[in-house]
Amino acid sequence: MSNDEALLARAALSRLFEPSDAVGLALVAAAGPVHALQIATGAVDPPPDLAAETAPLLSPGGSQGSALAEGLQRWAPRVADLAPDRDLGAIRRLGGELLVPEDPRWPESLRHLQMEMPLCLWVRGDLGRGLPELDRTVALVGSRDATGYGLSIAGDISAGLANRGYTVVSGGAYGIDAQAHRAALASAPAGTTATIAVMACGADRFYPAGNEDLLRTVAERGLVVSEVPPGSAPTRWRFLQRNRIIAALSAATVVVEARWRSGALNTAHHAAGLGREVGAVPGSVYSANSAGCHRLLRDGSAVCVTDAQEVVELAGPLRAVLPGEPNDIGGRAGDSPAGDRRADHDGLSVEDLLLLDALPVRSGSTIGKLASVAGLSLQGVRAGLARLELEGLAVRTEPDQWRRGRH
Amino acid sequence: MSNDEALLARAALSRLFEPSDAVGLALVAAAGPVHALQIATGAVDPPPDLAAETAPLLSPGGSQGSALAEGLQRWAPRVADLAPDRDLGAIRRLGGELLVPEDPRWPESLRHLQMEMPLCLWVRGDLGRGLPELDRTVALVGSRDATGYGLSIAGDISAGLANRGYTVVSGGAYGIDAQAHRAALASAPAGTTATIAVMACGADRFYPAGNEDLLRTVAERGLVVSEVPPGSAPTRWRFLQRNRIIAALSAATVVVEARWRSGALNTAHHAAGLGREVGAVPGSVYSANSAGCHRLLRDGSAVCVTDAQEVVELAGPLRAVLPGEPNDIGGRAGDSPAGDRRADHDGLSVEDLLLLDALPVRSGSTIGKLASVAGLSLQGVRAGLARLELEGLAVRTEPDQWRRGRH
Repeated sequence: MSNDEALLARAALSRLFEPSDAVGLALVAAAGPVHALQIATGAVDPPPDLAAETAPLLSPGGSQGSALAEGLQRWAPRVADLAPDRDLGAIRRLGGELLVPEDPRWPESLRHLQMEMPLCLWVRGDLGRGLPELDRTVALVGSRDATGYGLSIAGDISAGLANRGYTVVSGGAYGIDAQAHRAALASAPAGTTATIAVMACGADRFYPAGNEDLLRTVAERGLVVSEVPPGSAPTRWRFLQRNRIIAALSAATVVVEARWRSGALNTAHHAAGLGREVGAVPGSVYSANSAGCHRLLRDGSAVCVTDAQEVVELAGPLRAVLPGEPNDIGGRAGDSPAGDRRADHDGLSVEDLLLLDALPVRSGSTIGKLASVAGLSLQGVRAGLARLELEGLAVRTEPDQWRRGRH
Repeated sequence: MSNDEALLARAALSRLFEPSDAVGLALVAAAGPVHALQIATGAVDPPPDLAAETAPLLSPGGSQGSALAEGLQRWAPRVADLAPDRDLGAIRRLGGELLVPEDPRWPESLRHLQMEMPLCLWVRGDLGRGLPELDRTVALVGSRDATGYGLSIAGDISAGLANRGYTVVSGGAYGIDAQAHRAALASAPAGTTATIAVMACGADRFYPAGNEDLLRTVAERGLVVSEVPPGSAPTRWRFLQRNRIIAALSAATVVVEARWRSGALNTAHHAAGLGREVGAVPGSVYSANSAGCHRLLRDGSAVCVTDAQEVVELAGPLRAVLPGEPNDIGGRAGDSPAGDRRADHDGLSVEDLLLLDALPVRSGSTIGKLASVAGLSLQGVRAGLARLELEGLAVRTEPDQWRRGRH
C-alpha cells in the first residue's frame, strides 16, 4: 500500500463514515484503509475472520457479530456519492491538502484519541509553517452568545498566549471562538501558525457565514481543519465530534464562558477524558454565561484560570510554580488586577506582630507599656523593638519612647 | 474546683494571655484554670514536674525548658491589671455572660481547635436562644472594601441561608461581614439566634464605630462574642486569632470577596485546617476583590459556590447530590441564573441524534435521503423515525416525507 493509495482511501472513507463511527474505524484498524474501503463499499466481501478480528475493537454493547453487517447497511446509501479524487482536487484548489496518519506530519497528539482518532484531516492553509507541538497549543472555547466580559477575557487570554508563542485552537464559531481566533491573529508572531480553527463542516466552507472574513484570514495565516470532506454540512453530531479534535490537539482546554449546557463543556469533557488539562474562567454568579464554567470549577473538572499566565502554567511544561503559591513568573504582577501582595508585616514572627500591633502610630509608648499591651515580657519587647527598628517598622523618639515607623 | 472558680479564673486568664498563647493554654490544660492562674500570676511557684508535663503540649521549636519561664515574664506586666470580678460585672450589666468550657452550653465545635481552643467566650446577647448546632452554621466572610457585586451576593447567600434555618457567622466588619449580618437579621426566623458576630475586641465595644447600630441589633437578636475581655482593643493579632473562632463555629466558611491578601483567606485556611468545608464565590477576573477567591479556587482550597443552595450542600449534612451532577434539590431552578438545562436531544442515542440532525426543519426528506445524509442504513432510519415520531421530534408529512417536529 503506497501513501497515495492510503490518502485516496481515507479521503473516500471520510465521506462514507460519520465521525467516530466505531465499526468503520475498527474496520480500518483491522484491515488498513485501502482494504477497509473495498469492504465498506461492498466491492469485496469481508474475509471470514474479520468479524472476529474487529469484534475486540468495537465498543461494548450491541450485538458485535452483526456490527459489521449493520455498518455495511449504514454505509451503502453513500457509496454512490464517493468521489475522493474530486474532493482532493477541491481542497488542493483552495491551497490545502489532506493530512493522513501515514504522513510524518500527522500530529502525534491525535493518536491519543486511540480508536476515535479521525481518519484524516482536511486542511486549508499552509502546513509548511508546521503544526505546533502539543505543549505549545491551547484551546479556548465558549459560548456563541458571549457577553462583553467573556469577549474581553477571551481576547486578553488569547493575545497573551499568542504573545508567548502558543497556538490558540478553537472552533470558528461566533462569540468566544471568533474572539479567540481574532486576538491570536492580532498577536501571533509572523511566520508561525497563528491559530487553528477546527470545523464541523467541510474545510471548503467558511461557516458560519458571519465569520467568513475571519476564517479566510485564519486559513491564510493559520489553519482551518476538518475531519469531514469538502462540501459536508455542519450537523449537531459533527459539532460534538469536532470537539474531541479541538481537545486532542491542545495541551489544555480553557472554557471562557459557557451556559449550564454548552458545547464548550463537551470539549472540556473530551479534554479531561484524554488526560489533558482543563481550565475555566470564573465570572459573575449572576451571569448565565458563566454558569457552565462555575459548574466545571464546582465539580473539580477544571482549574480556575484568570489570565494568560495561569493558562500557560496549566498547559505546561513550565509548571515550576506550586499550586497555591503566589506566581512569580515574569510579567505576572503587571497582568494581575490585584497589586496588594506585600504588606508591612510579611514574615514577622508572632511576637513581632504582637509588638507591631501594640506600637502607637503617632505618640510614643514605653517598653513597660508595650509589654503590657502586647502581652510580652520586657526583654521580649526590647529584642522585638531592635528587630522592628532594623526593618524600619519601629522608631525610637526618646530614650524610652517608641512608635510605629512610617514605611 | 467549682464552676464559679473556673469562671473567675478563666475571666482573669483571658486578660493575662493573648489569644492562642501556646504556653498559657498548655499551662491551663496541665494544671486546670484555677491553679494555672495562681502559677501564671506568680502567686504560687510552678510545681517541679510542671515544666516536664507541659513540654509535650507546647508547639515544637524554641527551647521548651524555658517556655514557662518566658511565659511568666510575658504575663508579669499584666498581673496588676487583673480584675475578673469587674470584667464579669461589665458583661453582665450589658445583658451578657461569660461562657466557659466547663459550661454544658459550651459549643463542642470549639473543642476541634484542641490546644488552640479559646479560654472562654465573652458573650453579649441571649444565650437562652441557644447556640446553633455546627451543621446549621455557616461563616460568610470577605473584604471590608467590598464591591456592589460582593455585597449583592453576600446578601443573597446570607438571606438564603437564614431562610433555610442556618445561622450566619461573621466578623462584624465593614463590607461583606456587615452585609452578611444584615441580610441574616432581615431573614432569620423570630426567636432564633439570627446571626453571630465574633469580635477581635471586647464584646462591650461595637467596633468599628460605623457598625454600631448593626452590632447592637446583632446583640439583641443574635450574639456578639469575643475571647478577649471587655475593654480590649482590636489588634492585628487578635483579628487573625479571631478568625479561627469564626471557622471553628461553622460547618463551612464561604469567602464572598477577598483580595489576593485578605483576612478572609486566613479564616478559610483555619477552616481547612479544622477539616471544615471552604467555599469561594467566583467573580470577574478583572476585580481585585475576587482575586483571593480565585486563588482559593485555583489551588483547590475551596469549592466554587454561586448561591445559598450550593452553600447548604457544602455545609451538609444533606450531601445527597454527587459532585458534578445537576442539582435537583427543590428551589434550585428558581435560584439559578441559568435556565437552559433541558434540550430536545437529551437522552437520544447516537443514531437518533444523527437522524435528528439530518431531518429538515421545513421541507420534507425521504428515508433514502435521510439514510445518506445521516450515514445510517435504511432500516436504521425507519426505526429511528418511529422513535423520534413518538417523542414528537419527527413528523411524517407525506407517505415518504419526513421533517423535524415542532417541539
